[in-house]
Amino acid sequence: MTNKLWSGRFTKPTHPGVEQYTASITFDHALAMEDILGSLAHAGMLHHSGMLSAQEQNEISQGLTRIAHKIQAGEVAFSTQDEDIHMNIERLLSEDIGPAAGKLHTARSRNDQVALDVHLYLRKQLLVTVDLLTQLQTTLLQLAREHRQIIVPGYTHLQRAQPIYLAKHWLAYVAMLGRDCARLISSWPRVNQSPLGAAALTGTTFSVDKHYVAKELAFDGIYLNSLDAVSDRDFVIEFIAAASLIMMHLSRLSEELVMWSSQEFNFVHFDDAFSTGSSIMPQKKNPDVVELGRGKTARVYGALMAMLTLLKGLPLAYNKDLQEDKEPLFDVVNTVQQTLSIYIPALSTLHINVDVMRQAVQEGYLNATALAEYLVKKGVPFRKAHEVVGKMVAHCVQKQCRLEELTLAEMQAFFPEFTKEVYAALDLDGIATACNQELDKELLMLEREVKANQGWMAEKQAVVSKVYVKYGLG
Amino acid sequence: MTNKLWSGRFTKPTHPGVEQYTASITFDHALAMEDILGSLAHAGMLHHSGMLSAQEQNEISQGLTRIAHKIQAGEVAFSTQDEDIHMNIERLLSEDIGPAAGKLHTARSRNDQVALDVHLYLRKQLLVTVDLLTQLQTTLLQLAREHRQIIVPGYTHLQRAQPIYLAKHWLAYVAMLGRDCARLISSWPRVNQSPLGAAALTGTTFSVDKHYVAKELAFDGIYLNSLDAVSDRDFVIEFIAAASLIMMHLSRLSEELVMWSSQEFNFVHFDDAFSTGSSIMPQKKNPDVVELGRGKTARVYGALMAMLTLLKGLPLAYNKDLQEDKEPLFDVVNTVQQTLSIYIPALSTLHINVDVMRQAVQEGYLNATALAEYLVKKGVPFRKAHEVVGKMVAHCVQKQCRLEELTLAEMQAFFPEFTKEVYAALDLDGIATACNQELDKELLMLEREVKANQGWMAEKQAVVSKVYVKYGLG
Amino acid sequence: MTNKLWSGRFTKPTHPGVEQYTASITFDHALAMEDILGSLAHAGMLHHSGMLSAQEQNEISQGLTRIAHKIQAGEVAFSTQDEDIHMNIERLLSEDIGPAAGKLHTARSRNDQVALDVHLYLRKQLLVTVDLLTQLQTTLLQLAREHRQIIVPGYTHLQRAQPIYLAKHWLAYVAMLGRDCARLISSWPRVNQSPLGAAALTGTTFSVDKHYVAKELAFDGIYLNSLDAVSDRDFVIEFIAAASLIMMHLSRLSEELVMWSSQEFNFVHFDDAFSTGSSIMPQKKNPDVVELGRGKTARVYGALMAMLTLLKGLPLAYNKDLQEDKEPLFDVVNTVQQTLSIYIPALSTLHINVDVMRQAVQEGYLNATALAEYLVKKGVPFRKAHEVVGKMVAHCVQKQCRLEELTLAEMQAFFPEFTKEVYAALDLDGIATACNQELDKELLMLEREVKANQGWMAEKQAVVSKVYVKYGLG
Amino acid sequence: MTNKLWSGRFTKPTHPGVEQYTASITFDHALAMEDILGSLAHAGMLHHSGMLSAQEQNEISQGLTRIAHKIQAGEVAFSTQDEDIHMNIERLLSEDIGPAAGKLHTARSRNDQVALDVHLYLRKQLLVTVDLLTQLQTTLLQLAREHRQIIVPGYTHLQRAQPIYLAKHWLAYVAMLGRDCARLISSWPRVNQSPLGAAALTGTTFSVDKHYVAKELAFDGIYLNSLDAVSDRDFVIEFIAAASLIMMHLSRLSEELVMWSSQEFNFVHFDDAFSTGSSIMPQKKNPDVVELGRGKTARVYGALMAMLTLLKGLPLAYNKDLQEDKEPLFDVVNTVQQTLSIYIPALSTLHINVDVMRQAVQEGYLNATALAEYLVKKGVPFRKAHEVVGKMVAHCVQKQCRLEELTLAEMQAFFPEFTKEVYAALDLDGIATACNQELDKELLMLEREVKANQGWMAEKQAVVSKVYVKYGLG
Repeated sequence: MTNKLWSGRFTKPTHPGVEQYTASITFDHALAMEDILGSLAHAGMLHHSGMLSAQEQNEISQGLTRIAHKIQAGEVAFSTQDEDIHMNIERLLSEDIGPAAGKLHTARSRNDQVALDVHLYLRKQLLVTVDLLTQLQTTLLQLAREHRQIIVPGYTHLQRAQPIYLAKHWLAYVAMLGRDCARLISSWPRVNQSPLGAAALTGTTFSVDKHYVAKELAFDGIYLNSLDAVSDRDFVIEFIAAASLIMMHLSRLSEELVMWSSQEFNFVHFDDAFSTGSSIMPQKKNPDVVELGRGKTARVYGALMAMLTLLKGLPLAYNKDLQEDKEPLFDVVNTVQQTLSIYIPALSTLHINVDVMRQAVQEGYLNATALAEYLVKKGVPFRKAHEVVGKMVAHCVQKQCRLEELTLAEMQAFFPEFTKEVYAALDLDGIATACNQELDKELLMLEREVKANQGWMAEKQAVVSKVYVKYGLG
Repeated sequence: MTNKLWSGRFTKPTHPGVEQYTASITFDHALAMEDILGSLAHAGMLHHSGMLSAQEQNEISQGLTRIAHKIQAGEVAFSTQDEDIHMNIERLLSEDIGPAAGKLHTARSRNDQVALDVHLYLRKQLLVTVDLLTQLQTTLLQLAREHRQIIVPGYTHLQRAQPIYLAKHWLAYVAMLGRDCARLISSWPRVNQSPLGAAALTGTTFSVDKHYVAKELAFDGIYLNSLDAVSDRDFVIEFIAAASLIMMHLSRLSEELVMWSSQEFNFVHFDDAFSTGSSIMPQKKNPDVVELGRGKTARVYGALMAMLTLLKGLPLAYNKDLQEDKEPLFDVVNTVQQTLSIYIPALSTLHINVDVMRQAVQEGYLNATALAEYLVKKGVPFRKAHEVVGKMVAHCVQKQCRLEELTLAEMQAFFPEFTKEVYAALDLDGIATACNQELDKELLMLEREVKANQGWMAEKQAVVSKVYVKYGLG
Repeated sequence: MTNKLWSGRFTKPTHPGVEQYTASITFDHALAMEDILGSLAHAGMLHHSGMLSAQEQNEISQGLTRIAHKIQAGEVAFSTQDEDIHMNIERLLSEDIGPAAGKLHTARSRNDQVALDVHLYLRKQLLVTVDLLTQLQTTLLQLAREHRQIIVPGYTHLQRAQPIYLAKHWLAYVAMLGRDCARLISSWPRVNQSPLGAAALTGTTFSVDKHYVAKELAFDGIYLNSLDAVSDRDFVIEFIAAASLIMMHLSRLSEELVMWSSQEFNFVHFDDAFSTGSSIMPQKKNPDVVELGRGKTARVYGALMAMLTLLKGLPLAYNKDLQEDKEPLFDVVNTVQQTLSIYIPALSTLHINVDVMRQAVQEGYLNATALAEYLVKKGVPFRKAHEVVGKMVAHCVQKQCRLEELTLAEMQAFFPEFTKEVYAALDLDGIATACNQELDKELLMLEREVKANQGWMAEKQAVVSKVYVKYGLG
Repeated sequence: MTNKLWSGRFTKPTHPGVEQYTASITFDHALAMEDILGSLAHAGMLHHSGMLSAQEQNEISQGLTRIAHKIQAGEVAFSTQDEDIHMNIERLLSEDIGPAAGKLHTARSRNDQVALDVHLYLRKQLLVTVDLLTQLQTTLLQLAREHRQIIVPGYTHLQRAQPIYLAKHWLAYVAMLGRDCARLISSWPRVNQSPLGAAALTGTTFSVDKHYVAKELAFDGIYLNSLDAVSDRDFVIEFIAAASLIMMHLSRLSEELVMWSSQEFNFVHFDDAFSTGSSIMPQKKNPDVVELGRGKTARVYGALMAMLTLLKGLPLAYNKDLQEDKEPLFDVVNTVQQTLSIYIPALSTLHINVDVMRQAVQEGYLNATALAEYLVKKGVPFRKAHEVVGKMVAHCVQKQCRLEELTLAEMQAFFPEFTKEVYAALDLDGIATACNQELDKELLMLEREVKANQGWMAEKQAVVSKVYVKYGLG
């Protein structure tokens, strides 16, 4: 006969296929430390509220700590029969300390327990993610400082548009990643909230002190509503949505780096240590890292769609469907963190082909807009100026020359007001300088923002770490 | 020959199929007021920065205002040949005031112009959405107050689990919608930011005062980086992601209301004014509104997927692909607002079948957990108590009786420590009271939260309205 | 009091907001002709089965035909109060012929009626889509024939890899679009199936001849199961999934054309008639059409996600959620057809820069693989040959020369077996010829496949058209 | 210095983080047998075409077979340094037979090799999936036969609509799964196609016989275009799209079974062996299996979105992004097969509460439509009949009686033509019989279809197995 911990009213053992199908231990073992941490705090609350004696709490805590250390040492083999990490640890505890283990599940259900574990897990990973984001921003800021004066074509529609500083290009990504940080930070209050005490869905008849546990575990607050506490996965989706935007940003950067690494652009090349070869073509050096990063965007989007689909139309409160929340979350956390981690050194070792960039700026009539603006400054309505310059460009395309190669007389044939100052207005460095008077300020302000986010992260990190240390899981 | 405003360097007219395919005026006319508002502020800046004379600004502003009023009066027919709302209005202006209209596009591109329009549009819609969310919360809070004492089965796995107050059920949704508000509010700084001045991608050679426009239009700040300013659609995606969670929450509520309206549950029924009939089956009364609300979740998820797909791997800065951002955004805004709007009266007129709910609580052994907890309070480890009660339930199922219908002797056969106080522990009202000691406090705190969000919304609303009024578009 | 056609058991009029929210006439009017066609056939069946007299059928048919012609002439204004196209037409009929109109809905529900309409609509659109796919294939085949001998770099990882014929590149897309046709064709039996007779969900007590209607409307078969008939939307999803692959293929082609149009690649440029300009930058010529096509992939993916989400977890049989199937379907049909339609002329007028392509082939060591293969033919294991050539390439990169520019002695320093025949092995034209011995056969086989698909399409088209003509709707 | 098999032109070892990030061996080891099978056939072709001597082929084949048996015996530890399954096996082979191993990669790239492996893998899994689908259909057909005469309410809008046979309900799912089979079967030609010979992207300078390999491996054909061969993942997406529909169908069935298992419906309950309990609530018996099946729909949808996102806008030919195709595919294959496998016994042991179903049919005016049809048969237009019966139902709702409990006089007050035959028309069994005259035929035709699909599957299975057996991998 079955020995499931919930088998009281059942008359048959669980079908082995069902065990296999419904068990989550194959992936939720990743929550082991959080599960134990939550149980240690819960045991403390049970004692504090008179549901465990000091000795019982002591026994349970010591048992749990022993198990934690065994798990960390890789000495524990989990069992599918015990379904999930919660039941596995309860079983281990019961083998370790005997029937007193049975008191730990007082005033608690796996429903609020797993919600607690995921909150503990995600707040830790959120901080790691912010950390990595700011590290990548720091790398990009460093590139921006190094490339402060390098002019490259700025593109729209992948057509050369106007001259820009390469620094500005990197700073665009610093700004995007800054919003990514801001999004994660603004989601913190919804992540760092304790669901414990909701039990299965409506609390219990015990006098439970939810605030005690929340304080012990350094949560910022508790869920007001117990049905919501066990069925809410908003915080998971919100993280994955934020991660989707992170990956989207990286996919744009990756796309550009792949293109810039092509022989046609030839603007950059990755260091040999960050490139790979071909099994058949001996000459190949491929930008695999950023191609793969671009590709991994897909799995994060997929996880977002999976989570949204999962929750759609689910009645309250807990349903077994919710077990499917963990694999996408874990995968997204790993994907984003690994991608950020490898992009940092890959970018800091990137080789820049300054001359090729310079050459590119000079072709493509990137000073056409400035030329129109020159006319506007002489009082010509912009629409008229645009039209005149458009015709001049068409003329140059046919003649295969640059705008600055036209004589003044040729220019005046298009519009009489041209004077010789026009050549200064066509100077690419001059244009870049004029368009970017505030670039240094932009750099400084972004640096300041990155520092502020690092400060926030360090502060939260310190608080969270203290909890693990206090409970011997540091 | 073509008369496109950008046709200077072109030697052939645009293929009519291309005009048809690439024009956005069929949907971006929804941005007409925002486009004019932005142009009015831009004209002010051009004057302020010396690029327009007072008279020119005056002419342009009066022309734009006339056009705005014509559009509001439905007197304007937009043209596909003019591609988009920006070019259409520029053409109308030029017909109205002549060549001076050509000066308005100085120091501006459609790239930053459309970004500005979408920011202006979305901040307005965000406030309307928060307003509707808090109205629906208010409706649910009202239901919670009315149903403070009604006991219903709480469900997990759609199996009756424990007795809960109906109030608690409604409050779960108040809590969810509260998070939805919080998400929208925390995205505000990223929505209420001005991209104007970025021009096509890198600013212009003019001395533009970005802060002037931002202040005029009551933005909280400006985009630091110009490439980012024209290619950022994070704020659109962030809104649609938040909207996806709103719809997900409504889909869960809808699912429950559909089930509760079934003859099997029979817990509630919608008012005749909020039900519809069948073309073939004369007896049918269908909960169409909430079915459709549930279904509309799908299109919002689809829009999220579309927007994420759109942006993936796009190089900087503007690409034509970005034109595809508007239809999903508009559709999501409409869908969410319409759904919230109709749910408010549909819920406030919902009929509750109190007796059926009460009956349902009494069947299904909803007091089994409380019975286990009774044993725990006598010192039995929870695991043991759970097992004992599990066996008692199995016994009752077979006997087709309730737990409270067992005699004390029968109970003691399962576990000797039972005493007659057990019957009090099995009382459903007692259990509900014990589990929900803090329900009134929860209600109060949620009310307070709703009020705070309404306050935030009203304040922002006032600031934004003032801008429209100031420019004669109120 | 309400005059809804189903209002018998209702005591209150529908709330106007509900009418607005639940009405589908704003979009399902697109099914007007199919709805009338279905009704004409249904009336025929009712007469055939004795449920309508010849005169009644006659009256109804003439009335419906009159309404059809009015709709085609744009003389009908539909009403939201009548909810959907079915009720609108029923109302119009009743105004036209009086109470006899009330007999048309015998043995039919809107559930099977709308399913029928969508089947009729989609089979027509499926054929149009196959037609357009084969037209685009024909355009690409024409390009392949024209570019049979042009050598371009083939890329992997966007790095130049080996020389290929441009023809081969276009044929890759012909092959992809061929699979798209095959998928649509293989879905035909599931599209061209009649659901009529299922009524609301289980048929009726009338003796209905489902096969009669199916034959009249040239369906290949009927739904065996009535619950399935009214709740199946597989065929819609299957079409949208196939459309997603079509758009994915076009997005890959578009991406390449955008890159190839850049100044860096400069392989192709679009005709002026298929390019657009910039509102600010006078020199710009943008490949808007293919950018937008790439972007429109997003909305088709979004529609797929929406439809899958919609259906997930819906109990049988019809639920109001299903009304949300039409807008995504219509949008996908339009998007795919418009995109294919504009790509055909845009591609057939594409300008090819043969010299630039030729130049590109010569740089990037595209003959390195052939060089390794030369060694293999001399008995060197491929792995060894790969290693040797890899070192030679590294040497050339440093020396900034091509492989064929090494002297024989230099080569022999890397590997002694090199002989002067090596220079023939390095010849790019020779390599392309050797690698593509079967290119002409490939072209022929693809042409044959396209013709076969066109034949299939024309045959089905003829059958379907005949139905419309027979009922006076051709 | 690095010992990568492609390191010839590289001057630095790969960064360890890059190895970790880009390696696929952690998941693509699942392709080991297919990779070896492909290599065995490739070696045969190399010999057949004169590129390997008989002895070399022999050595290679024996080496590969030894490696295959070691892998099957679990004696091989793969290495991340060797990146993927292809390089791992090549390394093992080289350790086993020495430098001759280096000849195996002649005329082949990992690009066509991995495409081959995935084709081999998927065609096998496709057959397993069809097999499981037909097994589940067989289970449902068995239920349909058993429940041929049980009447249950048919639902629309989750409101009781008309009486149906329970058999019909099961058969709806048989029909859906039948379409799922049909979709997989119609995708077979696109799965069972050989890409080998495409090499990296354009074939090689060797005289390769693609048809030889295709015939050896029992493919139905070869890819005509080599660029397409290495970059096509349509067949993967098509499978995942078909799988999404399978899961969607199962999610609908699951939703119904979850609802039917509720105490409110109480139509069915799962066997104890297919139910699970609660960690806190001793009375709970949860339908975990079908809840989880419903939930797992989400991950399959997510995989579909991931794959579509992955491919969007990827230029030809192979890009590293494509490596991300395998995890979603493997996960979908496992998810669908596991879900089908467990549903079969879970459904075949399902308990039906016939009496509860019967009771449910009698309440809810399920005979109202038949009553309207009774009037139609007397010549009343359906619309009028619908209106009359609607009023009668409203009357009965108020009186809390059934339609058949009205006296003839009462009925005649609503409409004078009622005669006493009306009571026969109201008989539920009579209605069910009348509506379902063809149910037995439907059952037979569906059985025939299932058998045909099983036949197809068995035939293909035999052909495929023979290949594995021939090469000693059976």
